[in-house]
Amino acid sequence: MRFNTNELEKVAEGAAFLGTGGGGDPYLGRLVAQSTYRRYGAPEIIDVDALADDANVYIAAMMGAPTVMLEKILGVPELDLAVAALEKYTGKKADAILPAEVGGCNSMLPLALASARGLPVINADGMGRAFPELQMVTFNVLGVNASPMSMANEHGESIIINARNSQETENKARKLIIDMGGSSAISCYPMDGATVKRTAIPGTLSLAHDIGDALAAGRKSGGAVNALIHYLRSTVYYQHAYKLFEGKIAGVESKVSEGFTRGECEIRAFGEQSRSMIIEYQNENLVARVNGKLVAMVPDLICIVDADTGAPITTERLKYGQRVAVIVASVPPIMRSDAALAVFGPRAFGYDVDYVPVEVLAVND
Amino acid sequence: MRFNTNELEKVAEGAAFLGTGGGGDPYLGRLVAQSTYRRYGAPEIIDVDALADDANVYIAAMMGAPTVMLEKILGVPELDLAVAALEKYTGKKADAILPAEVGGCNSMLPLALASARGLPVINADGMGRAFPELQMVTFNVLGVNASPMSMANEHGESIIINARNSQETENKARKLIIDMGGSSAISCYPMDGATVKRTAIPGTLSLAHDIGDALAAGRKSGGAVNALIHYLRSTVYYQHAYKLFEGKIAGVESKVSEGFTRGECEIRAFGEQSRSMIIEYQNENLVARVNGKLVAMVPDLICIVDADTGAPITTERLKYGQRVAVIVASVPPIMRSDAALAVFGPRAFGYDVDYVPVEVLAVND
Repeated sequence: MRFNTNELEKVAEGAAFLGTGGGGDPYLGRLVAQSTYRRYGAPEIIDVDALADDANVYIAAMMGAPTVMLEKILGVPELDLAVAALEKYTGKKADAILPAEVGGCNSMLPLALASARGLPVINADGMGRAFPELQMVTFNVLGVNASPMSMANEHGESIIINARNSQETENKARKLIIDMGGSSAISCYPMDGATVKRTAIPGTLSLAHDIGDALAAGRKSGGAVNALIHYLRSTVYYQHAYKLFEGKIAGVESKVSEGFTRGECEIRAFGEQSRSMIIEYQNENLVARVNGKLVAMVPDLICIVDADTGAPITTERLKYGQRVAVIVASVPPIMRSDAALAVFGPRAFGYDVDYVPVEVLAVND
Repeated sequence: MRFNTNELEKVAEGAAFLGTGGGGDPYLGRLVAQSTYRRYGAPEIIDVDALADDANVYIAAMMGAPTVMLEKILGVPELDLAVAALEKYTGKKADAILPAEVGGCNSMLPLALASARGLPVINADGMGRAFPELQMVTFNVLGVNASPMSMANEHGESIIINARNSQETENKARKLIIDMGGSSAISCYPMDGATVKRTAIPGTLSLAHDIGDALAAGRKSGGAVNALIHYLRSTVYYQHAYKLFEGKIAGVESKVSEGFTRGECEIRAFGEQSRSMIIEYQNENLVARVNGKLVAMVPDLICIVDADTGAPITTERLKYGQRVAVIVASVPPIMRSDAALAVFGPRAFGYDVDYVPVEVLAVND
């Protein structure tokens, strides 16, 4: 399987939805991937099962505040340097590239690098969405260390971090983000094929494509949001999907701190001014409340889309007055285990609440 | 040449003087070196001239706030890991160990590591004193990049930084100090023998020993401070040496920020309460003023010693009521070039004054 340029647009839109507001705008990543495709052609997309157990698999991604990405788009040379630095450190050449997160820009950058290197991309990732920190992936939940990890930037600078666990890797890498230029190309969680098979969430790249496809088809039939929900309900991961809210953005507060974009967005219901939803985010949308009551929380998907076109809106593009719908959806069961919730459940983001699945909250609404 | 355990005490005391308050207390480094000597014996000390042009030379040092060193002394395993990580990165095994700075603890740690590894230590360093930042060495002034650089800690964690220049290397390494545990073992400026010959300041390790020797001899004859100044005036580097002030410490303000110990110390003249000296430091003593007038400034040496014993007092051990003398001395001419002053002259530390050599200030006093 390969994605051509038209299909890249669909993958990018699906990735924007799965990015739940964060992960960097895939539109920018798509431009990078498209320009690389023009020169080197589309890379092969392979399923996890097609991977040899002893294959050397490398992640290629960007790390940093998405708001910085608006001004400084990562190039393929930095991604290549990040992977090359880690290859040199481990002494093993890459056989395939793995997306760390299918949500946001980090769905596109692996495709761009794989195109330039002539390597296949694995149809899988470590979360089936986007998350703001390195340790927030199934690889870590299932015992893989993010270290050794590499960072690289447009000045040809590179860093190798060999920390004792994924959280310490994140802590150290995050401290370097500003000095690497506000964002950084990275490679981490170097794995063999057998470990990828054991720890990755399969099929997520083609799911992103199919979400984009459902949106495109829905627009032609005049019901993009409904088409999106209809498609999500047909999947094995996102089958508990709901339109939780519709309204107009009444306020956005956002700041960049510690290499993250943090803030909240208030949405007032159409024709019902006293009803409002507040969504809090750290790069990605974390929790949604309606008049103070929690209606959705990480790791479930909380996505703000254009009310008419269903186009996903990333946090850095939220603006006063936009007419939006809020769509929520379940995540794969592997993302809801106790071990997983300890790493990226609501408490991992500082919320003093137990995780309740979105389908349970929806029934009790 | 080798330093036995008694001679190590002299090197440590001379290093404390050359540390000008910073560089970490060599007493702690001496304990590490002595315990390593007991097991592996004293390493050979070789002069720069004895070094092969193609020898692989590695620095071993600690980086971080000296106040942290009081609580967490670096061990030889971390130093070994720092050098080993850089050896692995460059693909070249170490033939000799070079002190980065002869001032402070970093005079002792290379001796300890060289002892454990059975390698020679080069009788030279990059400043003939101590300085708080990585780029503040003759190696950098003369065009050598601090990168690739390694960091390592007691958890077996390691980092490789490959930045575009020494200042960027410092910036990135400094950001990691807290997450490495407040201080870190490091190796940087990997050089061949020819480059060491071109850029290092020769003979500084034996000079540290001889300063300690002069203090010990002076104590027996009852005039440690005078003996120290007499000896300094006989050297080629520190020949402009003066006792600028004597008095009692009237106040010390100190804080740890950004991985540095910063602060100032006020000394009131004996029997002349209206006359006071203020010394400002960032790990090392940077400038000395008497009643507001600058009387000495970096890179010249400004050292606070016990008024009776001549024992150097590091900034983290300054205490109210101590009776002290302030001794200042010139540094090697290579440390006073325009290029050198741009890196570690008063302006490099934020003082809006031109450098004036201590011997000129003394004449105009």
